[in-house]
Amino acid sequence: MHKKTPLNTGPEGGNESGSRFKMVKKRHRKTYETALSQGKVDEQMKELCSFVTGTENYFTSSCCSGRIMLLEKRGDKKTENFFHRKWHRNVTKKELLEGFLENVSGEMWFKLDPFILHIGCEDIEHANEILFAMKKSGVKRGGIMVAEEGKVLIELQGTEQMSFPLKLGKKMLVSEGYLSAVLPKANKMLSKNYKRLSTLCAEFQKQLR
Amino acid sequence: MHKKTPLNTGPEGGNESGSRFKMVKKRHRKTYETALSQGKVDEQMKELCSFVTGTENYFTSSCCSGRIMLLEKRGDKKTENFFHRKWHRNVTKKELLEGFLENVSGEMWFKLDPFILHIGCEDIEHANEILFAMKKSGVKRGGIMVAEEGKVLIELQGTEQMSFPLKLGKKMLVSEGYLSAVLPKANKMLSKNYKRLSTLCAEFQKQLR
Repeated sequence: MHKKTPLNTGPEGGNESGSRFKMVKKRHRKTYETALSQGKVDEQMKELCSFVTGTENYFTSSCCSGRIMLLEKRGDKKTENFFHRKWHRNVTKKELLEGFLENVSGEMWFKLDPFILHIGCEDIEHANEILFAMKKSGVKRGGIMVAEEGKVLIELQGTEQMSFPLKLGKKMLVSEGYLSAVLPKANKMLSKNYKRLSTLCAEFQKQLR
Repeated sequence: MHKKTPLNTGPEGGNESGSRFKMVKKRHRKTYETALSQGKVDEQMKELCSFVTGTENYFTSSCCSGRIMLLEKRGDKKTENFFHRKWHRNVTKKELLEGFLENVSGEMWFKLDPFILHIGCEDIEHANEILFAMKKSGVKRGGIMVAEEGKVLIELQGTEQMSFPLKLGKKMLVSEGYLSAVLPKANKMLSKNYKRLSTLCAEFQKQLR
């Protein structure tokens, strides 16, 4: 059996875990503000992350608002994947084809990824507020991934996605016509993803303190 | 603010929630055994679900081992999606092309979905054992979706997936050649998905009581 930190401690444990949370929150606030000042926060994620950072009982760590990309896979592992192109917004046919026509050495895949969001919470009761807001805004995927004393982390994710191979080295598997037919669908799904994210943000603003 | 059931009650609350859990577990055991006897449980999911059903502190509700399918979309909502073909195993080129060449009225999509698994736990401490086994077996996606007194539910999911459109009504967007190039990749990803599921099962058998 692995070693666990007990979750329900007495008032003293509660105070200790509270100060641990405050310390971690302060650190994440700094990291977020630096990223913001360096223009590294996705445009569509700013409102939500800034709001959560300003609350008393929550913080955000890594987030992505959702994206369309051309991914180069040089092997089966995630570490062997490289961004060939990446957009956190709707994409034009010209931009997509330009990236598609460039050569890569591995496989080229088209990918549409939904938003992903990590939120730290003071305790399970506060985590439940996030789960409630998630359900209310129609976000289907997410849950508490870490539930320890003083460390409660939630992951939330959208469900809009696409993924398929485009090229094996120089060999094109699909035509430009296929990409032109698929792109409007992908853009529509990405817009739906951003709309869901903004519903979630509004729900947070109503629920969280 | 919404109404919440408090999570940490005294010993009496604990007993009440324990008997609520036992009642729900008994009901899910019956449902599972009926599904098993009717041949409705995915082959690759049987060992894991049967093991979890036999433990003292956990039960499974809905599960899917992962699948390749041809999906017909008649609209944007999930209720407007229909299975045109569905396989919980590797697929042959002949099977795939046969399904592809048949006419559907909406859009036809190729989809590879990873396993998804819902587990009920007696309390948060037991849920943590599941999260630990999940991390140890390399399952990246999952968490506690409901954390109430007497009701703790976890969702676990694999990450192998593909999704792309094949046809708009009768109009084919991809060639048979494209499907022949993609299918071996999809089969390989599905095998990887099943292997991860069986690593998770082995970890459960080591950890859970």
